[in-house]
Amino acid sequence: MENTDYIEFFKKDRYAALFDIKLTEVKPGYARAILKITEKHLNAGDVAQGGALFTLADLTMAAAANANGRLAFSIQSDIRFLQSAFPGDILYAEANEVLLHKTVCHYHVDIKKDTGELIAIFDGICYRK
Amino acid sequence: MENTDYIEFFKKDRYAALFDIKLTEVKPGYARAILKITEKHLNAGDVAQGGALFTLADLTMAAAANANGRLAFSIQSDIRFLQSAFPGDILYAEANEVLLHKTVCHYHVDIKKDTGELIAIFDGICYRK
Amino acid sequence: MENTDYIEFFKKDRYAALFDIKLTEVKPGYARAILKITEKHLNAGDVAQGGALFTLADLTMAAAANANGRLAFSIQSDIRFLQSAFPGDILYAEANEVLLHKTVCHYHVDIKKDTGELIAIFDGICYRK
Amino acid sequence: MENTDYIEFFKKDRYAALFDIKLTEVKPGYARAILKITEKHLNAGDVAQGGALFTLADLTMAAAANANGRLAFSIQSDIRFLQSAFPGDILYAEANEVLLHKTVCHYHVDIKKDTGELIAIFDGICYRK
Repeated sequence: MENTDYIEFFKKDRYAALFDIKLTEVKPGYARAILKITEKHLNAGDVAQGGALFTLADLTMAAAANANGRLAFSIQSDIRFLQSAFPGDILYAEANEVLLHKTVCHYHVDIKKDTGELIAIFDGICYRK
Repeated sequence: MENTDYIEFFKKDRYAALFDIKLTEVKPGYARAILKITEKHLNAGDVAQGGALFTLADLTMAAAANANGRLAFSIQSDIRFLQSAFPGDILYAEANEVLLHKTVCHYHVDIKKDTGELIAIFDGICYRK
Repeated sequence: MENTDYIEFFKKDRYAALFDIKLTEVKPGYARAILKITEKHLNAGDVAQGGALFTLADLTMAAAANANGRLAFSIQSDIRFLQSAFPGDILYAEANEVLLHKTVCHYHVDIKKDTGELIAIFDGICYRK
Repeated sequence: MENTDYIEFFKKDRYAALFDIKLTEVKPGYARAILKITEKHLNAGDVAQGGALFTLADLTMAAAANANGRLAFSIQSDIRFLQSAFPGDILYAEANEVLLHKTVCHYHVDIKKDTGELIAIFDGICYRK
């Protein structure tokens, strides 16, 4: 598939779509997505829910992994929350491939504000069918 | 707060609420939540999005941690996806406190189907204000 | 191989042997090991070095995984340090299989003192050749 | 303390010393160490034991964290094994501070061969006394 085809494919991710997560670039081993924090992303403490940041990172990793041309799904992820994100913040997630093996692949995802401030870091492993 | 007060408090979590995650029990160091997988939780592969499982675990941990009476927020989490969850599956998350220190606390969360099948395991650390 | 054969095989682990880590039970998906903390295991702060606890957990997982009869090696591990271990402490590590898939397998390892106090928890994923 | 004082201090880490791990640079939030893989670092499969790589990363993080001038000890670490290391390989670990909060700090450590090949990646959280 072309870069644009993968972006179309991941629009089928209803969970991510419901949260306005948008993939802006996808190529083998790399993907970038954007999310603007609004009311619907807030937890009881009025900051972005950890699950919103996790979902942003997870979708970005999934796009980078699947763009290698074989179905890949996550088997483990680790996320570290460094700063809170607030309503109005525009977050960018960037997934880079750390290693592509025959059956497993590793990714690192940085989530930053448009100011460049690092909000969360994510590392994940996918299994390739 | 009483058990029921914490359940009320976490209804303010708009992100979790939008996903129909419901806390069913909350006490200091322990919480239990339920989620029925529906169309809105699916990824492009038509199984529950990893972010939906993460959010279920994260909210359950947050409830168990905050029920100790001091504001606690997650600083790191690790999740392992063992089995896929499909539309119609009813998932139960149970958070147990592993360790409660003065400023940090550790939790383990199991996510199981009502059949008892283990779907995902989650470990997290919270910082206590 | 028999239980005792695996114990013999892992005696070839020179790194673990140099640290007096001893496997006491090995069967498919389960292993148990013991380590007595002595001077050689201490860090600059005079408590057991995190690497000593990690190595104890890692060897125990490796034994449990390889006892399934196919070569398995670790691709990712997460360890949480709950309490310090001191000279004279006798630590027991117990590895249990969480999931055995065709090419990957998941393990959880608890490290406890002989008093039953939980010292560290470890989760790991192995790749099966 | 001066850079050299921290290097002296960590020579008291008997566990790391027994494995010939040597800190070559230490400053607040940053440290670098070197390890040459020899017979003593091997597991039953004749490659460097995961615990040897973990200990190399853990010591490097501890040096970077403590160089901030307050006692810091690890509470959680995640390591991903990307490539095997063999006898004769010279490994370099480099720890960089991701975030320094009042009571917790985050580090990332890369372990590379002198050829530049990435062997393992490590993320850890320390608690500051």
